[in-house]
Amino acid sequence: MNGAHALLKTLTHNNVTTCFANPGTSEMHFVAGLDDVSEMRGILCLFEGVATGAADGYARVTGRPAATLLHLGPGLANGWANLHNARRARVPLLNIVGDHATYHTQYDSPLQSDIAAIASSLKGWQRSTQSPNEVAQDAADAVSAAYGPPGRIATLVLPANVSWGEVTNEPNEWPLASRVSLAEPDEHLIGQSINVLRTKKAALLVGGDAVTGERLALAQRVAHATGARLIMETFPTIMDRGAGVVSPERLIYLSEFAIPQLQDLEALILIGSTAPVGFFAHPDVKSRLTSDQCEVIDLAPPGCDTSAALRALVDGLEAPVVASPSGEGPGVPHGELTSQSLAAAVAATIPEGLIIADESITGGIHLYGATQFSLPHRLMTLSGGSIGFGLPSAVGAAVGSGQRVLALEADGSMMYTLQALWTMARESLDVTVVGLSNRSYAILTLERQRVGAVTDGLASQRMLELDNPTIDLCALASAQGVPSTRVTTTDELVSALQRSYATPGPMFIEAVLPKGLT
Amino acid sequence: MNGAHALLKTLTHNNVTTCFANPGTSEMHFVAGLDDVSEMRGILCLFEGVATGAADGYARVTGRPAATLLHLGPGLANGWANLHNARRARVPLLNIVGDHATYHTQYDSPLQSDIAAIASSLKGWQRSTQSPNEVAQDAADAVSAAYGPPGRIATLVLPANVSWGEVTNEPNEWPLASRVSLAEPDEHLIGQSINVLRTKKAALLVGGDAVTGERLALAQRVAHATGARLIMETFPTIMDRGAGVVSPERLIYLSEFAIPQLQDLEALILIGSTAPVGFFAHPDVKSRLTSDQCEVIDLAPPGCDTSAALRALVDGLEAPVVASPSGEGPGVPHGELTSQSLAAAVAATIPEGLIIADESITGGIHLYGATQFSLPHRLMTLSGGSIGFGLPSAVGAAVGSGQRVLALEADGSMMYTLQALWTMARESLDVTVVGLSNRSYAILTLERQRVGAVTDGLASQRMLELDNPTIDLCALASAQGVPSTRVTTTDELVSALQRSYATPGPMFIEAVLPKGLT
Repeated sequence: MNGAHALLKTLTHNNVTTCFANPGTSEMHFVAGLDDVSEMRGILCLFEGVATGAADGYARVTGRPAATLLHLGPGLANGWANLHNARRARVPLLNIVGDHATYHTQYDSPLQSDIAAIASSLKGWQRSTQSPNEVAQDAADAVSAAYGPPGRIATLVLPANVSWGEVTNEPNEWPLASRVSLAEPDEHLIGQSINVLRTKKAALLVGGDAVTGERLALAQRVAHATGARLIMETFPTIMDRGAGVVSPERLIYLSEFAIPQLQDLEALILIGSTAPVGFFAHPDVKSRLTSDQCEVIDLAPPGCDTSAALRALVDGLEAPVVASPSGEGPGVPHGELTSQSLAAAVAATIPEGLIIADESITGGIHLYGATQFSLPHRLMTLSGGSIGFGLPSAVGAAVGSGQRVLALEADGSMMYTLQALWTMARESLDVTVVGLSNRSYAILTLERQRVGAVTDGLASQRMLELDNPTIDLCALASAQGVPSTRVTTTDELVSALQRSYATPGPMFIEAVLPKGLT
Repeated sequence: MNGAHALLKTLTHNNVTTCFANPGTSEMHFVAGLDDVSEMRGILCLFEGVATGAADGYARVTGRPAATLLHLGPGLANGWANLHNARRARVPLLNIVGDHATYHTQYDSPLQSDIAAIASSLKGWQRSTQSPNEVAQDAADAVSAAYGPPGRIATLVLPANVSWGEVTNEPNEWPLASRVSLAEPDEHLIGQSINVLRTKKAALLVGGDAVTGERLALAQRVAHATGARLIMETFPTIMDRGAGVVSPERLIYLSEFAIPQLQDLEALILIGSTAPVGFFAHPDVKSRLTSDQCEVIDLAPPGCDTSAALRALVDGLEAPVVASPSGEGPGVPHGELTSQSLAAAVAATIPEGLIIADESITGGIHLYGATQFSLPHRLMTLSGGSIGFGLPSAVGAAVGSGQRVLALEADGSMMYTLQALWTMARESLDVTVVGLSNRSYAILTLERQRVGAVTDGLASQRMLELDNPTIDLCALASAQGVPSTRVTTTDELVSALQRSYATPGPMFIEAVLPKGLT
């Protein structure tokens, strides 16, 4: 048995059973091992950013790490942007990065690079395995590191000769990853939180794993009992949403609106979230979004048990059960296609259990408001702000959940990782993609105003427009094997969504919006 | 005047006049500055790997750095793979990477990342500018660092508040980059080289900037006068090629063939190249390609004047002028489309001055042999081995040279940076793309044999095949505004190439080869 085989055995023994792969020469023994270790499902991706984004989506829906298989420094770098999103989402994820044989690196051959430096920028765990006999334990350690808690990016570098070298210490049983329990919330901070909830104008800011239906219900009990506001972080990893699920106020993305949103607060209690700061700095706008007078209590930082924290507040406050929120399900919209009617169309057609991967940027701005009373579903968002998340994460979510996934993409953001469409077709994944075509980087038109960089020149305008030439999104999808359709009215969109949800496999819907619509 | 404006002024004052951009919020002031500094041509790319690959191609054909404009850590990481190729090609290249405002980084907002660690892995020059008044000198220093020699990747990080902040020390004249001269070859090594050329079974290994027509002619005089062999590195940055140009023996990519190719040599003189080593390690194959008995003389390492080195050898040996090589131009091939006939079709139709960007991997294996007596042209290759080079470098070469560029791509490699097609269409670039469709990662089928990882299982085979679904390469091109055509015979390919060369603007030709053809 060689090192690659031992790696596959250890991973599958630890319930890491999916590998999103874009292999090269150094990874051929791992690939060959897929024939022997059938418990591992290898899924080919045509670009590494697809593999890493898929592993992120997989982890969001399953709570378990998938492996990626990446080729040397370039492979890890190509996957970096979506690893950044996964890092910010605090999901467990395991990179297997092939490297040159250990004795070969001294020669600085063309593909030699500083993999360790790239991996270090992900602020997770990393190790380069130095012999076939160390593979199994290193793999178990990597899985352990990936789980955290909180989840993190673990990068295991596998030199080619470690991969093909013989394992001479084959164990009776492959090592299991040690698992660390969630930290208990601090008693003192619980007391302090209860006190400010009773005495101050306070809010709970929930995020991380505290946005499940169950935890949101606990949070709402706390809010009802004390008059506190219940606010959610702007870009949740994955949240429960729809009828019967508490719908928290969402922290506004734009600092200039978020600051007034929070300015009356005297206390903010963080549960699975971090202290709110501006996504970007803008001239004459504060970075910290709470007022200087606001007391911020970090009750359950990432890695802490948010369920226990919420329950402690409920118990301490003797907060009564609150009825599930109810309201009329969204009606089917008609007429012109705008970002409002698009959100309404999505909301009206959501099948129960749908997972939405939202990277629609400006085009999807009305989505959150529209889906409050849709059928129960889950929402994944762009936690790290690194564009190219939507399609890959939809791949991983579909693989991990077996449920239908709806990816909401914009034309600008879709172009970063459009190769994910091919994997959807190859694996016959139940993914519906809505590609919002507004022929512009509309977010940048907005941001340009916010940072005060508006001019009336054409040279700069040309950097924000995508309509010369216009991209045929449908053709990009069908060229990669995904059936596609173009819609220009709300009625057409509703019907295309319904058709896709009723049809196994992927479908691409290009939704043509007015140019530059934000 | 703000910092971004001062940066643009300094860059253009230093003849950096092209910027391949994929901007975000932090770069909006730079974008706005394009309206005021019309000497800078901004070219929008829809993915950062396109921008960096284009800057590489631009530098290869002009010898001058282009700037890239990248958004924070994700932008630099997305551009990394082609920066690796540029690093190995030793071309000058200047990254402008926007960052959060200096006062904002302490808050670890979602897009915060360790840009310095990513940049450090490029082993070039890097600096983060800390105030608007330092922008101009930092930019000049960056240009200086990019030029080297040898050329390198310079990364200037530009925080948003440095970009929008006021410059209060505006100079009468913007600073000029200091330029370092090429090193003179070492007198002792010249003498030693002449000695081994006279007494031993020797070869010159030329690479780097020593593969221009003029320098190859000098090298051939040395070879003729001494009986030495003239060998070229496997993956030149850019070389002169075709009728009237010396055609050196090419170092073979496959170590198992390169070792016998070099084994008789008693001495190898490096001119602009590095000591030959295997691209990858393979079980039971040596990494160093020369025999243990071969004396390797590093006469003109990168950064040294290869022209002076060759001239010193010519003078020391009193090597007479050798007639230009001549032979019959390649005839027009017919019949079935294979990798041989494809190479012949390209060779037969090359217009004078064409620049070829070759990333055809296995599909283009016969190209070098076929083009010896084509019309004079230039050839760029995958110096760093990082896939996704072909289309982006063709963009940059077309922008930099104003000449027609032929990009030879394979379906597998094309999928890494296919967004380059859109920029070709938008900028009406004279680029002809031949996309070789063999529906497989044929190089990996070969490499899998070489590393001894062949199995007969379907799970592994599925990681190397691209035919389920087959990708419609033509549709990918036309969806992005590039006219496309599909050819299945050699005659059709010849005629499509000729039509494209006669037609301004880009054209995409999908050449359908037998499946898995290597």
